[in-house]
Amino acid sequence: MKKSIGAITIVFPTPVFVVGTYDKENKPNAMVAAWGGICCSDPACVSISLREATYTYANILCKNSFTINIPSEAYIKETDYFGTASGKNEDKFASTGLTPVKSELVDAPYIKEFPLVLECAMLHAVKVGLHTLFIGQVKDVKVEEWALTEGGFPDIEKIKPMIFNPANRTYYGVGKYLGDAFSIGKKK
Amino acid sequence: MKKSIGAITIVFPTPVFVVGTYDKENKPNAMVAAWGGICCSDPACVSISLREATYTYANILCKNSFTINIPSEAYIKETDYFGTASGKNEDKFASTGLTPVKSELVDAPYIKEFPLVLECAMLHAVKVGLHTLFIGQVKDVKVEEWALTEGGFPDIEKIKPMIFNPANRTYYGVGKYLGDAFSIGKKK
Repeated sequence: MKKSIGAITIVFPTPVFVVGTYDKENKPNAMVAAWGGICCSDPACVSISLREATYTYANILCKNSFTINIPSEAYIKETDYFGTASGKNEDKFASTGLTPVKSELVDAPYIKEFPLVLECAMLHAVKVGLHTLFIGQVKDVKVEEWALTEGGFPDIEKIKPMIFNPANRTYYGVGKYLGDAFSIGKKK
Repeated sequence: MKKSIGAITIVFPTPVFVVGTYDKENKPNAMVAAWGGICCSDPACVSISLREATYTYANILCKNSFTINIPSEAYIKETDYFGTASGKNEDKFASTGLTPVKSELVDAPYIKEFPLVLECAMLHAVKVGLHTLFIGQVKDVKVEEWALTEGGFPDIEKIKPMIFNPANRTYYGVGKYLGDAFSIGKKK
């Protein structure tokens, strides 16, 4: 029996994207977005949705660039801090000791210590309501060498990304392998 | 040391959204979208990105409606089948034995057996490239009563949603609780 719980924003999973930008004086900033995901395969694009009140919102419009950085579980405290403080008042890289690296492809910094990063050029900004959806074209994906599979792709079990649970605002890890897609259901 | 792996579509996690629609003859269909996520808090909106070649693409434009259905791990085979077959050739509800329930709020079916569903009215369609991003306004969220927390929200540990790993096209479960957001990083 299903119960109606209203028009709220709950899906499982939502990501923990750390968004890297520069402000107009080229000070690096990082914030957390759980509203986002891949939105096109060709060209490769990813979307994030931000409130206009965030420091990152103005930074993206200024530089037309952002990075998506996927933190490992080990960086849960730094990541949560990125999601609670504002770049308007604090230098979040100085506070955490994490290292912004200037992208050579877009005008935004990525985070050296995080294992998987996407460098994105802003393609579209769509005002939806409280949030504006920014679509970024992925110019490159960079992965720590220790985090690659033998086939040369990012290994989810080595990277240990986090999941955000919007129902009670908690972080979860990735669990066990369940099956191969485009395969396990073929016999239906 | 980071290695460049090119402009590809890999982030962790991506969701396993089963998208419910009716075609112009009101035949229910379900497909899987891993490109999507919440995109606005007010009004509550969710986005999914689809190729024009899919049956669902035309259905959404015809009915201006879709549902997002979150399967439990137990439905991995049915879910994967929804992602491999096309509604152009097959009646996927008949094949799986799952039950389409007509939404009273939008012109789309949700899946009775899946524990968490969102009923969405299409607000915007943004052509990005190979994929078009559809933004749907959430009209209601419905949850199986057994899947609720004591506080009345969907319980991720009861629902056991799946995660899609686009790097090697596999499904994973949700792992362990790691910490509270807007809290664990406050001492940084």
